[in-house]
Amino acid sequence: MPVTAEFMRRVAAAAAAETLPRFRSQAAVANKLAGGFDPVTEADREAERAIRAVIAAEFPEHGILGEEHGAENTGNSHVWVIDPIDGTRAFISGLPVWGTLVGLTVDGDAVAGLMSQPFTGELYYATEEGSFYEGPGGARRLSTRPTKKLADATLFTTTPALFKGGQRALYDRLEATVRLPRYGTDCYAFAMVAAGHADIVTDPGLQSYDIVGLIPIIERAGGVVTTFDGRPAEQGGDILAAATPELHAAAMAMLA
Amino acid sequence: MPVTAEFMRRVAAAAAAETLPRFRSQAAVANKLAGGFDPVTEADREAERAIRAVIAAEFPEHGILGEEHGAENTGNSHVWVIDPIDGTRAFISGLPVWGTLVGLTVDGDAVAGLMSQPFTGELYYATEEGSFYEGPGGARRLSTRPTKKLADATLFTTTPALFKGGQRALYDRLEATVRLPRYGTDCYAFAMVAAGHADIVTDPGLQSYDIVGLIPIIERAGGVVTTFDGRPAEQGGDILAAATPELHAAAMAMLA
Repeated sequence: MPVTAEFMRRVAAAAAAETLPRFRSQAAVANKLAGGFDPVTEADREAERAIRAVIAAEFPEHGILGEEHGAENTGNSHVWVIDPIDGTRAFISGLPVWGTLVGLTVDGDAVAGLMSQPFTGELYYATEEGSFYEGPGGARRLSTRPTKKLADATLFTTTPALFKGGQRALYDRLEATVRLPRYGTDCYAFAMVAAGHADIVTDPGLQSYDIVGLIPIIERAGGVVTTFDGRPAEQGGDILAAATPELHAAAMAMLA
Repeated sequence: MPVTAEFMRRVAAAAAAETLPRFRSQAAVANKLAGGFDPVTEADREAERAIRAVIAAEFPEHGILGEEHGAENTGNSHVWVIDPIDGTRAFISGLPVWGTLVGLTVDGDAVAGLMSQPFTGELYYATEEGSFYEGPGGARRLSTRPTKKLADATLFTTTPALFKGGQRALYDRLEATVRLPRYGTDCYAFAMVAAGHADIVTDPGLQSYDIVGLIPIIERAGGVVTTFDGRPAEQGGDILAAATPELHAAAMAMLA
């Protein structure tokens, strides 16, 4: 049974029913780790539960791996990977640049995925038909823009502070080379690359669930997403996404 | 004639009619300065023209000062200050955290203002009645949250790179003291402080039109906004906004 646009909308709606009423509600904020500031909300937990229920009803044999509720049946060839709220810090700060990420891997390759932002009413998703947007301004097929040179590129990262040790100097050199850098973007930045509004995203230390849902959206729109050393992005790690193969190669040469 | 909520909605709608159709349209991007990257769009110019027309029809005797089309009749006691698109870099990157800023000063004091974000459908505004939100989730009166200690505070800034020389070390020390820092926010951050979703915003080197529209929204919601050395914010400069007087004093002591 293929993954359809209608199924993607259903997953996004189930998540939105749990996240949106809790967005900008201070009461929902809790700390995941007592030691540091790693916020998570009821919204995170309940949205993942709701997404798992939609997936299990449609694809009962598939495995599921979620940030909040762990792994189920992940020995199956088909495994769904869920981040109910990517960008929890944006979420608790009232900024509408967080998103729900859900991706399907088959034998480890990401083949379908979605990023939804319910406050703005946006859905970015990829099926085997391609990569698509639905939301304000209408529905359309996504494609990256044809930027090939670093000097012409916009570059997004969540914060340079995530680049540690020698990596930071490499990042700073990349930042100094591009046309426009921008911070504070989380998953939203990857959607902007797929949609042709931005050119490069780089975020070190991502988890699998931070990126699997986004990989097919970027790839089916014409972009490239890998680790800094060019390996598949599905396992997470230090991730680089770019609008074109040429731009990806140029950025990778500076980060490796 | 007082400034009404209905007038604020009319200003926001006039601006939105020019900005929203051009948002996420790559064709509209132009460079303001040949030497560097200071993007401005047709949207900027046309939105300011539309806002000026709405103001001139309602308050023909008032002065107007705009980022794009200069000063008119600014010897009058009442002067409107306009930034048609604050956060043009967010605008050209597809991120919905830019806003239209319009404020009214009387004898130099900001007494009414708005920040509107037409993609999300949000309007934050202040009249002599108070400070208000209209948008997704409904309409409500704005109030800041009661955060008093830096250790409990979230801190927003557009980018630490804007802090120059010795200022940068002071900023870094403030950032290390707060609970959660966040970058890349422009005017949206000030609205989040007014709405009780964030605690502190600091941005050095602002122009008058970057802040006048936001001052009454923050002040009437219970917050404080001044320069780093405690002077009125209406002329721009190095600006610090905080949710409470106590928090403002604590942040100012670290930045001064």
